[in-house]
Amino acid sequence: MKAYVRHEMGVLGWMEKPDPVCGKDEAVCRPIALCPCSSDVHTAWEMDGAWLKDITLGHESIGEIVEVGEEVKDFKVGDKVIVPCTTPTYKHPDFQDTPDEDAGGQFQGICFSNYSDGTMAEKYVVRSADLNLCKLPEGLALDKAIMVTDMMTTGFHGAELCEVKFGDTVVVFGIGPVGLMAVAGAKLMGAGKLIAIGTRPNCVAIAKEYGATDIVSYKEGDICEQIMKLTDGRGADAAIVAGGSAETLGQAYSIVRCGGHMTNLNVITGVNEITFSYLQSAAGFMGHKTINGGLCPGGRRRAERLTSMILAGRVDPSRLVTHTFHGLDSIPEALQLMKDKPKDLIKPIVYID
Amino acid sequence: MKAYVRHEMGVLGWMEKPDPVCGKDEAVCRPIALCPCSSDVHTAWEMDGAWLKDITLGHESIGEIVEVGEEVKDFKVGDKVIVPCTTPTYKHPDFQDTPDEDAGGQFQGICFSNYSDGTMAEKYVVRSADLNLCKLPEGLALDKAIMVTDMMTTGFHGAELCEVKFGDTVVVFGIGPVGLMAVAGAKLMGAGKLIAIGTRPNCVAIAKEYGATDIVSYKEGDICEQIMKLTDGRGADAAIVAGGSAETLGQAYSIVRCGGHMTNLNVITGVNEITFSYLQSAAGFMGHKTINGGLCPGGRRRAERLTSMILAGRVDPSRLVTHTFHGLDSIPEALQLMKDKPKDLIKPIVYID
Amino acid sequence: MKAYVRHEMGVLGWMEKPDPVCGKDEAVCRPIALCPCSSDVHTAWEMDGAWLKDITLGHESIGEIVEVGEEVKDFKVGDKVIVPCTTPTYKHPDFQDTPDEDAGGQFQGICFSNYSDGTMAEKYVVRSADLNLCKLPEGLALDKAIMVTDMMTTGFHGAELCEVKFGDTVVVFGIGPVGLMAVAGAKLMGAGKLIAIGTRPNCVAIAKEYGATDIVSYKEGDICEQIMKLTDGRGADAAIVAGGSAETLGQAYSIVRCGGHMTNLNVITGVNEITFSYLQSAAGFMGHKTINGGLCPGGRRRAERLTSMILAGRVDPSRLVTHTFHGLDSIPEALQLMKDKPKDLIKPIVYID
Amino acid sequence: MKAYVRHEMGVLGWMEKPDPVCGKDEAVCRPIALCPCSSDVHTAWEMDGAWLKDITLGHESIGEIVEVGEEVKDFKVGDKVIVPCTTPTYKHPDFQDTPDEDAGGQFQGICFSNYSDGTMAEKYVVRSADLNLCKLPEGLALDKAIMVTDMMTTGFHGAELCEVKFGDTVVVFGIGPVGLMAVAGAKLMGAGKLIAIGTRPNCVAIAKEYGATDIVSYKEGDICEQIMKLTDGRGADAAIVAGGSAETLGQAYSIVRCGGHMTNLNVITGVNEITFSYLQSAAGFMGHKTINGGLCPGGRRRAERLTSMILAGRVDPSRLVTHTFHGLDSIPEALQLMKDKPKDLIKPIVYID
Repeated sequence: MKAYVRHEMGVLGWMEKPDPVCGKDEAVCRPIALCPCSSDVHTAWEMDGAWLKDITLGHESIGEIVEVGEEVKDFKVGDKVIVPCTTPTYKHPDFQDTPDEDAGGQFQGICFSNYSDGTMAEKYVVRSADLNLCKLPEGLALDKAIMVTDMMTTGFHGAELCEVKFGDTVVVFGIGPVGLMAVAGAKLMGAGKLIAIGTRPNCVAIAKEYGATDIVSYKEGDICEQIMKLTDGRGADAAIVAGGSAETLGQAYSIVRCGGHMTNLNVITGVNEITFSYLQSAAGFMGHKTINGGLCPGGRRRAERLTSMILAGRVDPSRLVTHTFHGLDSIPEALQLMKDKPKDLIKPIVYID
Repeated sequence: MKAYVRHEMGVLGWMEKPDPVCGKDEAVCRPIALCPCSSDVHTAWEMDGAWLKDITLGHESIGEIVEVGEEVKDFKVGDKVIVPCTTPTYKHPDFQDTPDEDAGGQFQGICFSNYSDGTMAEKYVVRSADLNLCKLPEGLALDKAIMVTDMMTTGFHGAELCEVKFGDTVVVFGIGPVGLMAVAGAKLMGAGKLIAIGTRPNCVAIAKEYGATDIVSYKEGDICEQIMKLTDGRGADAAIVAGGSAETLGQAYSIVRCGGHMTNLNVITGVNEITFSYLQSAAGFMGHKTINGGLCPGGRRRAERLTSMILAGRVDPSRLVTHTFHGLDSIPEALQLMKDKPKDLIKPIVYID
Repeated sequence: MKAYVRHEMGVLGWMEKPDPVCGKDEAVCRPIALCPCSSDVHTAWEMDGAWLKDITLGHESIGEIVEVGEEVKDFKVGDKVIVPCTTPTYKHPDFQDTPDEDAGGQFQGICFSNYSDGTMAEKYVVRSADLNLCKLPEGLALDKAIMVTDMMTTGFHGAELCEVKFGDTVVVFGIGPVGLMAVAGAKLMGAGKLIAIGTRPNCVAIAKEYGATDIVSYKEGDICEQIMKLTDGRGADAAIVAGGSAETLGQAYSIVRCGGHMTNLNVITGVNEITFSYLQSAAGFMGHKTINGGLCPGGRRRAERLTSMILAGRVDPSRLVTHTFHGLDSIPEALQLMKDKPKDLIKPIVYID
Repeated sequence: MKAYVRHEMGVLGWMEKPDPVCGKDEAVCRPIALCPCSSDVHTAWEMDGAWLKDITLGHESIGEIVEVGEEVKDFKVGDKVIVPCTTPTYKHPDFQDTPDEDAGGQFQGICFSNYSDGTMAEKYVVRSADLNLCKLPEGLALDKAIMVTDMMTTGFHGAELCEVKFGDTVVVFGIGPVGLMAVAGAKLMGAGKLIAIGTRPNCVAIAKEYGATDIVSYKEGDICEQIMKLTDGRGADAAIVAGGSAETLGQAYSIVRCGGHMTNLNVITGVNEITFSYLQSAAGFMGHKTINGGLCPGGRRRAERLTSMILAGRVDPSRLVTHTFHGLDSIPEALQLMKDKPKDLIKPIVYID
């Protein structure tokens, strides 16, 4: 079968691979919709590592089941399914007292295109199918459903880690697709004032649709000063970092009030340390501000829950889609677009017919 | 000054009282908007108790400050303020490890018309003004703001006590004003499927506006069976009781799944015990279902937070208002309406000009 | 092989059964120590149900692995293991948002002697071995280790569900083995005053060893009144019910302060409803008291964690053992003892050599 | 009256000050026991700031009330009281949704010797007496009770912020008095393996008494490597930093497992930024490790709760006392000792007769 792989760092191409073997509790799917992700760009062009040789790219997809293992109870051939990008390994006991996505070690939950072949192929395997797949509800549009797999679970996780409460003032740093979903997630946990930081007009417009009450742009001056002004000098209850650099974490920390939360959703690369500058005093790390961050939750129930929110009309994540492609063959172009990041891009989708 | 009081159980009337004395950390307000509440009906016509003799009724109001104590820092004469129905006593240390509203004992947080004079008078006192008042934001309509004082904080509390999470299936028993706000609150904590139980057409319509995805009516058969069917036999993640009788608690408990939450917002009167029937097995109290319930949170920050949510457009609580009155003199009529509960009533408001 | 079974309600006996078949992710053990439990008495003599016909009894054991499935990674033949009474089914997605022990439905976590054969046999199967077994640390005495399987995880769960905090005043109703472990668990979560309710002198002595500061006996008058006196009228922060009847829940609820917690660990049988009497007012269910209860957590990490506490010297659960037996053949006698409950009995153990 | 003050940075001395004025809700105490603290050393010799001119030092004390304001209900002249070092301002609404100790701004909870005169004087004022004082129980030794005021609440707070659970592996960095109390607090929240990092023999001995199961010293090699070895490469569930430098935070972070907690109790001075090095990968801030830290909780209930734990025999904090002084006049010597930190010092106490 055909798979779109990263031969080596920066060297991508189609490759003929054997059909995937379906384990007893696994399912094999063919993709019916795919989205490239910034993480694919990262894997393809920025990460080095012997274990990534010839790995199939892709981790966001809606699939149709073409084969199931004999132990799979709840899914059958022909089922259309939402395939979370994070499919935790529920065979390692870590999940019993650690976030599922970190069971077996940090990032082990996201095996697609990291530890095993991804979804940009004619077929791909999903491990522990009963525990990791979610049925695609009748009538749910693919461009909504596919956002459950990564953008929505990731962005919403920012709000969860910040433990957003009724009336919290929340700041979201960065309004790419993850940041926009963080805005929507913060609203759906009860945020009052919701400050989004960004400049691109299409993103700003959607941030407002998703619940942002204020927009802050670096073009208007120092970001932290603008936030402090918008919060009457009190600082925010929560800050979600969904873009920027290592320095952004320090900025975010500085505008959170005592007792507030800061969460990092941004996979920062190219550095081996994080420095919190901007501390107002030497004892800045003593103000009961909580710092957290992590990979998005996955697994079946998570996907079912987010899908239920879309069905209930709580959010329309398809507003993220700015570019549409058709056919497996368009994957390279769609991925290249993600790398080039033109100004009007938020998220591309590839329909496989 | 003039005050509308409960002389004795069932005997109401206007009474001339001395002007309230303003303590050093207190504020005296004149009401500019008032709402009668079911609890007023309860106090006026159903509760017996020597301490209620000649007590001024009313606990939901927007006020204008006419006098402040010398220790009050953040408010001044002329300020228009949202006056929470729950104004906890922050002089009793209980609040340090107990919900504020229960500091000093159950219900002690709601002194208005329970332990001291209420708001249905030309003037009333607010204790610990800096800790209990919230400025009325410029331009915020009174019929929205007044819902912060009780309906919104109470209904939202149901969702909070149920710890609603992204994608939870939530059931709200009863869709009077508190139940409707519980619907809105559950949505704003991330509920997916949201089942409201009620029959009155105007309430049903607003329940849907506020986020209900399904409506269940006793007219269509057994409520619990309908809910179990809507949840594919799994039960709800959370149930909020905002109406009904003592028996309703047992019903609600029975339709919650293992590990779920049930919350009671309903002041059940006339009984001295609560029986949980409908247990599927003898060991029904061993399924990790959490039961909770309590008076709405009050205090300044709570009111500021809910107000911030209205300003951000998260919810429009003025949709509850079905009847409008003008002038202090219309209080008896408005209260009587609340007692009579005509079919089209959700919530009356009295504007005091 | 030989198994001690409940043929029918009240009819027990030895039975020849085929050797258990070991699934790919399972382990077969031979018991090296066993404890009968009150739940065994319940299953053997009190429960009716077709699915219990000829079921092997027993769910508390230390085993030696005699066979492992090919997918088991962390255990091998010859390993001595602590076998939790609760071995959740991690193949049903419920565990992703429900307590593990309730995954698949209430009580499904405790399959031993409930939904499949128990441990009172020459051999027994443990499902999902990598996820449910815990290595027996070198040198850890069997009479300590075996308490991890049920008594310790159950009693400690009471303290967990009550969310005991530093300095909480905690009341434990009933000081049989579970209640005693609840005392120890409450102490190890930071309880200050710790009131144990019971009368048997040996239990009272061990309750004090485990951390009880006060003992209350029904022989000295009304239990609730005694507790209210010991708490200066304030009530307890938490109450753990580990004995008594359905009525005990109402008593426990009544002595918890506003904002406090009550947890039920007692499998109450023979009734289909629970009534909360003793409410001080009609609105007794509005004081932010949390009610909860459930089956003990199981699984590997839980057992490893409790074992780590014993190794660290936090508690010596072997103090519960009052009667010692040797050999598989002594099981009937040990179980009968559990049924007869002589005054000096807390917990019997059977060593199988 | 006589007060021991910091005239300027590094310039200390006795000063004659007017007797403190007692506000309506305040109490004036004379100290009957005092402890100097590392923070006093910091204030006296290291901090610069105009507002510290001639400020009375000291914040750990047991007092006898010599005057009370007319609004104080629960305390009277002659009462002996435990005076928390943190006496939050309950007049600022921040405490309603922020840790009490940060109400009004970071560190505002600790006014003694920071924003107003401290306890090293013939008399001192305690604000909001009903909310901040705790009666000294009859018969409780002063050297135990005084540890409630700071060492115990601070060290225990480390365990709280780490949300220590049954069987957690906890590492405490630094075993001065705060670190030792963190060890005791972690044990009393259920820690299993408890690794203390330090070298001084007397501290090591007491760490073991308080519950440490393993001791790690920099003298034996790299600290992080030793911890990883002791945890079989898995890392700790929680790390509490109670000593060291800014760099220690990075070390602590690196040895916490995914999903674990790290808490900082150490007031780090002389730097304006914190750098997390030692990240295993560029994405080290994405492993669901929670970072937190803050000033110790204060107020009446906190002190009552910790006192209740001492009375129940959960911990004997007087084991920290290594040096004893008598009389107000010995304060300079005791404070100098705290500055000099001889090897055998843990904590000095000054009895004022």
